[in-house]
Amino acid sequence: MKQNIYDNATFFKNYTALRASGINYNNFVEQPAIKSIISSLKGKSVLDLGCGDGHFSKYCIENGAESVIGVDISNNMIDRAKRINKDNHIEFLCMPMEDLKLSNQKFDLIISSLSIHYVEDYAELVRKINRLLKTNGEFIFSTEHPIVTARKGNNHWIKTKEGHKLHWAFDNYQEEGMREHDWYVDGVVVYHRTISTLINTLIESGLVLDEIIEPQSTSAGLKQMPKLINEKRRPSFIIIKSKKQN
Amino acid sequence: MKQNIYDNATFFKNYTALRASGINYNNFVEQPAIKSIISSLKGKSVLDLGCGDGHFSKYCIENGAESVIGVDISNNMIDRAKRINKDNHIEFLCMPMEDLKLSNQKFDLIISSLSIHYVEDYAELVRKINRLLKTNGEFIFSTEHPIVTARKGNNHWIKTKEGHKLHWAFDNYQEEGMREHDWYVDGVVVYHRTISTLINTLIESGLVLDEIIEPQSTSAGLKQMPKLINEKRRPSFIIIKSKKQN
Repeated sequence: MKQNIYDNATFFKNYTALRASGINYNNFVEQPAIKSIISSLKGKSVLDLGCGDGHFSKYCIENGAESVIGVDISNNMIDRAKRINKDNHIEFLCMPMEDLKLSNQKFDLIISSLSIHYVEDYAELVRKINRLLKTNGEFIFSTEHPIVTARKGNNHWIKTKEGHKLHWAFDNYQEEGMREHDWYVDGVVVYHRTISTLINTLIESGLVLDEIIEPQSTSAGLKQMPKLINEKRRPSFIIIKSKKQN
Repeated sequence: MKQNIYDNATFFKNYTALRASGINYNNFVEQPAIKSIISSLKGKSVLDLGCGDGHFSKYCIENGAESVIGVDISNNMIDRAKRINKDNHIEFLCMPMEDLKLSNQKFDLIISSLSIHYVEDYAELVRKINRLLKTNGEFIFSTEHPIVTARKGNNHWIKTKEGHKLHWAFDNYQEEGMREHDWYVDGVVVYHRTISTLINTLIESGLVLDEIIEPQSTSAGLKQMPKLINEKRRPSFIIIKSKKQN
């Protein structure tokens, strides 16, 4: 069963308010990093997996991409995408990315921003992505960092009574699989995978690893969201870029 | 200044006793993994960086390598290597691996077992290794895992009063550089580097990433050293294999 938390009304309302505020981890940590690692968008055909409200699909078109297909499991998200990020060069599809069938299309760039941690069968997805890439095509994705997803349970900053963060609690690293955590609603499910699984699976599928980023906050982020200084202490995200050489 | 802890008498005595016992992390966690990732030794010319007492150099010859150069900073270690692992096909050199100059030689395989965390300038070492590799040559090394080296200070398992391990304390990830810890003697220095630095530096030098292992204990290890079960909770080591394609 694929969880579709973004169609939960409570979650969706809180999540869209967070994103609309502009004051969040996406804007200050993850998005600047994933955008910086894209070689070029000029004239590219792009597949955006877990496109959400389509902001990144739109960004690709605004920066020279020729066409984008945005895919998301959530009706709420795709409805919103069609409203606020409509564009003649973007096609939005509502379905789990795992179920995608595009037998006659290949892409220059496949991106996925903070969605792949929701996917249970990573190896199968990577094989599909490899098939959907043109030669020299790039696959770039961001995901929750294994250092963050490893330990079971919530509340991993260990704090003094006064709330001072002592250290990050780390555990359960080699036990891959489901992790539930609370984020606006109880029991949001993500899948923990080790760093070796994230990387070796790409290489086994035939992709070539190109670069990894473990991003920190931008300086604007540190001013507007001082707690982002903690990204120096433990990274929330990892961004992995690979390419298809033949 | 390059620290040469293995020429400290107290350290050397304790370390050689630990290795001689056979009951250690090397034998049960790191060595089985690094040996498993070598494609083939048959007929290969090998450079063993941080060869210590030469056991791994000897292993390479016993498993078909044609020649090995073993390099170590420690006189104690090289003396011992020449005594206990002498072989006509092995040449042992006493010098810091950073100072190695072998302008007319190239190798099929460069290995380094748990030594590179002692090296301050990783990027410079990787460039040198790339120059010393033949086309299709492999570079395989193990190092302390960034998850283990990240936090400053000692004693990172947080325990109850009864000694039960609650979790591993993690911190300071993005602050690369020196870490001092106590291991038989005070102030053993290793260098913490992030996972992205470990990997991107290889790729930037022109090497192609081939595989990563974050090893767990062998079953023999779990029987003889029950605490190795904790390798499931947080990995002590990471092993990285890359190759030179042109």
